[in-house]
Amino acid sequence: MSPPVLILVSRPVVGMSDGRTDGDDGFRLADAGAPQLSVFDLGVTRGDGVFETVLVEGGRATDVDAHLARFARSAHQVDLPEPDHTVWRDAVAAAVAAHPPVGSLSVKLVLTRGIEGTGVPTGWVTAREAPDFAALRVEGVRAIVLDRGYRHDAPATSPWLLLGAKTLSYQVNAAALREAARRGAEEVVFTSSDGFVLEAPTSSVLIREGGHISTPSAELGIVPGTTQRRAFEFFRDEGFETEAVRLRTSSLLRADAIWLVSSVRQAVPVTALDGEPLTVDAPLTARLNRFLSGR
Amino acid sequence: MSPPVLILVSRPVVGMSDGRTDGDDGFRLADAGAPQLSVFDLGVTRGDGVFETVLVEGGRATDVDAHLARFARSAHQVDLPEPDHTVWRDAVAAAVAAHPPVGSLSVKLVLTRGIEGTGVPTGWVTAREAPDFAALRVEGVRAIVLDRGYRHDAPATSPWLLLGAKTLSYQVNAAALREAARRGAEEVVFTSSDGFVLEAPTSSVLIREGGHISTPSAELGIVPGTTQRRAFEFFRDEGFETEAVRLRTSSLLRADAIWLVSSVRQAVPVTALDGEPLTVDAPLTARLNRFLSGR
Repeated sequence: MSPPVLILVSRPVVGMSDGRTDGDDGFRLADAGAPQLSVFDLGVTRGDGVFETVLVEGGRATDVDAHLARFARSAHQVDLPEPDHTVWRDAVAAAVAAHPPVGSLSVKLVLTRGIEGTGVPTGWVTAREAPDFAALRVEGVRAIVLDRGYRHDAPATSPWLLLGAKTLSYQVNAAALREAARRGAEEVVFTSSDGFVLEAPTSSVLIREGGHISTPSAELGIVPGTTQRRAFEFFRDEGFETEAVRLRTSSLLRADAIWLVSSVRQAVPVTALDGEPLTVDAPLTARLNRFLSGR
Repeated sequence: MSPPVLILVSRPVVGMSDGRTDGDDGFRLADAGAPQLSVFDLGVTRGDGVFETVLVEGGRATDVDAHLARFARSAHQVDLPEPDHTVWRDAVAAAVAAHPPVGSLSVKLVLTRGIEGTGVPTGWVTAREAPDFAALRVEGVRAIVLDRGYRHDAPATSPWLLLGAKTLSYQVNAAALREAARRGAEEVVFTSSDGFVLEAPTSSVLIREGGHISTPSAELGIVPGTTQRRAFEFFRDEGFETEAVRLRTSSLLRADAIWLVSSVRQAVPVTALDGEPLTVDAPLTARLNRFLSGR
């Protein structure tokens, strides 16, 4: 596997152009194998920042503008300045160009509040070869249902909880996946404390009931899925009705099929929920993944 | 102000002694002004790690063993290996020794899950001159009450939420303080979604009603306060009854006085809660802070 590529973004947010000189793109290639981050960066001391992960297949970045729009939305939600769309889009392209050609690249964009006391945000882009998820997309994952602890209306009543922002304070997601492993599963479907389906730690949840595909609506404080939106296009083309709604946890039990969808892993069928086997429609899942890959 | 000191801890957890050589203390002084952290460290990409902050006054570290015990407890809660007590205690002493003598030093210990894929935790200690909080300890802060979104029993029912661990995924605390600033205040008292008092973003809450001092009990999913414990010693010496209990939010309204206590800032009186003025007992607060300083 090739070593990862790192681009440091020196001009990550709008309004930082004062020090700009000719030939300064606002980013530069750096040594991904060397330390590049201060231990005083609020990104690490407070998990204070936002990120996005973009899939690049055959040199082509998927949904870059949708990811950049969500990046800006997350930044706004945590009171960070607006990311400079052009700088980040060009930095992503530069990271892809600097990496040897491979089947799939996972490109990550990170914006932090910067070194404490400076008021200058830190930004970087990494590109690394993505694991091969081909088998997982066929074989699927076992999931458990876990309470995320917040009521479904917390995003509206308590905006300081930052629900729905894609932030670096991600440790609960990792802890939930460790809890799944302890219970003999690989994935988690989070629910609200009052019994609504939310999302998985790093993916959106799609539920099929007959000819109907639904996903939890963004007002519940979940990260609005870029891949989920494209999956809905696929299902409508296939003749399904699609809907973003409030789903009671009980709807998981009635589901004919459940998928977890995300940018790099794409669509992965859930084969069992809390130990109860679920049907997997293999041909439909394969067509969905072909669509998501743009093939 | 002197530049901060950085100690990189190469042997942060027990069981890493295989590569040990004579004269290797498990840590070394490093350049705090240079980048020392990989952008692939899970401490920054997932806020996946734990920390402690220790006050050093006149060269003497306060409550180091209590902080190290809590550090170990946080690490255990997030499934990190056990921090090497001796290495960290010596690293703290080395950081203090390497810093020019100042009135107060804030010493921070950080342990992360390390660079993704390596399974080797990252550790470091920083020492930097603490801001002068003398005026704040007299003048106090205005606080607002904010819902932290979790029920009081979430720590028991949902351990994957990591409540009570002092982790790097701290962004909600920063967001709550920004919400306070928007409402003309400097601090926040968090409550559970079902109406119990919890803690402040970076301090414990002490409430006085007559001759009674209470603080929320740790089972509610708050960080058990090292400074709160020492403050209780003070209050018992002063003839108060002290108790760690479940406190209804309504008890905030009945309080004769409220303090926020933490390692570096020590005891800060709350002068107003949600805009309602609160009495400040200036002589008692001054004695409390003298006690916490060990003077």
